Amino acid sequence: MGFHDQLRRSWDASGSLLCVGLDPDPAKFPAPLDHGNESLLRFCTEIVDATADLVCAFKPQIAYFASQRAEGALEQLCAYIRDRYPDVTLILDAKRGDIGSTAEHYAREAFGRYGAHAVTANPYLGGDSVEPFFAHGGGVIALCRTSNPGGDDLQSLDCGGRPLYVRVAEMVANEWAPRGDCGLVVGATYPDELRTVREVVGDLPILVPGIGAQGGDAQAATAAGITADHRGLIISSSRAIIYASSGEDFAEAARAAAIDARDSLVPITPR
Amino acid sequence: MGFHDQLRRSWDASGSLLCVGLDPDPAKFPAPLDHGNESLLRFCTEIVDATADLVCAFKPQIAYFASQRAEGALEQLCAYIRDRYPDVTLILDAKRGDIGSTAEHYAREAFGRYGAHAVTANPYLGGDSVEPFFAHGGGVIALCRTSNPGGDDLQSLDCGGRPLYVRVAEMVANEWAPRGDCGLVVGATYPDELRTVREVVGDLPILVPGIGAQGGDAQAATAAGITADHRGLIISSSRAIIYASSGEDFAEAARAAAIDARDSLVPITPR
Repeated sequence: MGFHDQLRRSWDASGSLLCVGLDPDPAKFPAPLDHGNESLLRFCTEIVDATADLVCAFKPQIAYFASQRAEGALEQLCAYIRDRYPDVTLILDAKRGDIGSTAEHYAREAFGRYGAHAVTANPYLGGDSVEPFFAHGGGVIALCRTSNPGGDDLQSLDCGGRPLYVRVAEMVANEWAPRGDCGLVVGATYPDELRTVREVVGDLPILVPGIGAQGGDAQAATAAGITADHRGLIISSSRAIIYASSGEDFAEAARAAAIDARDSLVPITPR
Repeated sequence: MGFHDQLRRSWDASGSLLCVGLDPDPAKFPAPLDHGNESLLRFCTEIVDATADLVCAFKPQIAYFASQRAEGALEQLCAYIRDRYPDVTLILDAKRGDIGSTAEHYAREAFGRYGAHAVTANPYLGGDSVEPFFAHGGGVIALCRTSNPGGDDLQSLDCGGRPLYVRVAEMVANEWAPRGDCGLVVGATYPDELRTVREVVGDLPILVPGIGAQGGDAQAATAAGITADHRGLIISSSRAIIYASSGEDFAEAARAAAIDARDSLVPITPR
């Protein structure tokens, strides 16, 4: 099943726009866990078990695994999510971007090795950089307008009357989307820009990081980006959910935080 | 030693602008090698041993290791280069780009785990995305003008009278370079644009992929990008060198191809 079909299944099954970002940082692990790779996997799977019925997607961030020599744990985590929670969409947050045969190897990594339904990608290298992802049947979620202060450095540059991030949205909607299942990343901290992107990209899924610890307003973001059928958004929260408690009750606390986050979003209309 | 000091040492010691890109694809391995991770490491170390005195830098491309579950082999390869060839600069080609704590984990990956002197990075997320790299004392080589057909999709957009890639060069030279050791990536297929970037960035190192298999003209590129002291460039070739022969003599053939490539470039003046 392709990314878009899988995501529709996930929205329908969960009734939720929430995505939990899995950014396992041992420095923040709850007291019962030590810093080894087994703890890293256990931490993530307990969060997954505690929140899977509340989310449309899980989004592991590969940098946290790469810095800890824990690609094996990431493989096991991805297989666990795919096996146990087939209704949930698996997004590998890797922000990949390269060309030719190198892009082909990144596609094998994301869709073969880790079994993701979609991978986040950087648009700077243009259309041919994502062709191998489509050839593997995977989805591509392109960075468009990011929530960090430096996001303005290039993304807001005036490119022929429109800011660069709008040009990116146009490129993805007009040139990439006919060739494979696409989405875009727009930070929750910019609801006006999210509304602009929504107008450009029709019903393409938009991944919205930045609620919770990053301070974005979830309600303003969903109001700005929701589609007519009350779908279209993947609203991601990481730290505010996975580190909701630093004690024995970390999984229960993550569940409570995920319920609060889900309920703060526009409810999905049943199908 | 920081990236710029290391690179000057490498240019002076080798008298060469050549960089060998290590993109190990088992489908192209010479006949004596099978497809396992041991062969992958052996292939790369034999190429390294055969060419180390001819180059200023080695540039392993992480995607080829990631697709083959071979991060362990990449660790061993990087340690091998650092230990045996301390005069050579080690560039991790990973084109990373993320923000905040995620960027911090990518920095740990590149400079801690793999011990690179510099990492290639994507500029789309702006200045704060590379701060953690500088904080780790590592160099950042930002994508500027890439050699692929889709490079035009965004990089050539007119941003207030100058194409986006020139704006990137200005950002790196004016805002990033004062904070850490920077370089830029400009494909060999665009010597005019390489000349433009050189005018913008002063003596910052420019990594130039695309000679050899990608068809770029090495002499036109070096003429366009060389600095007054006959340095400033890292001219990278991968496939034309590492796959110069598919037989038992692959390392000797790589050495011969590397000599040809080195000698086709502007000679470095001795210090």
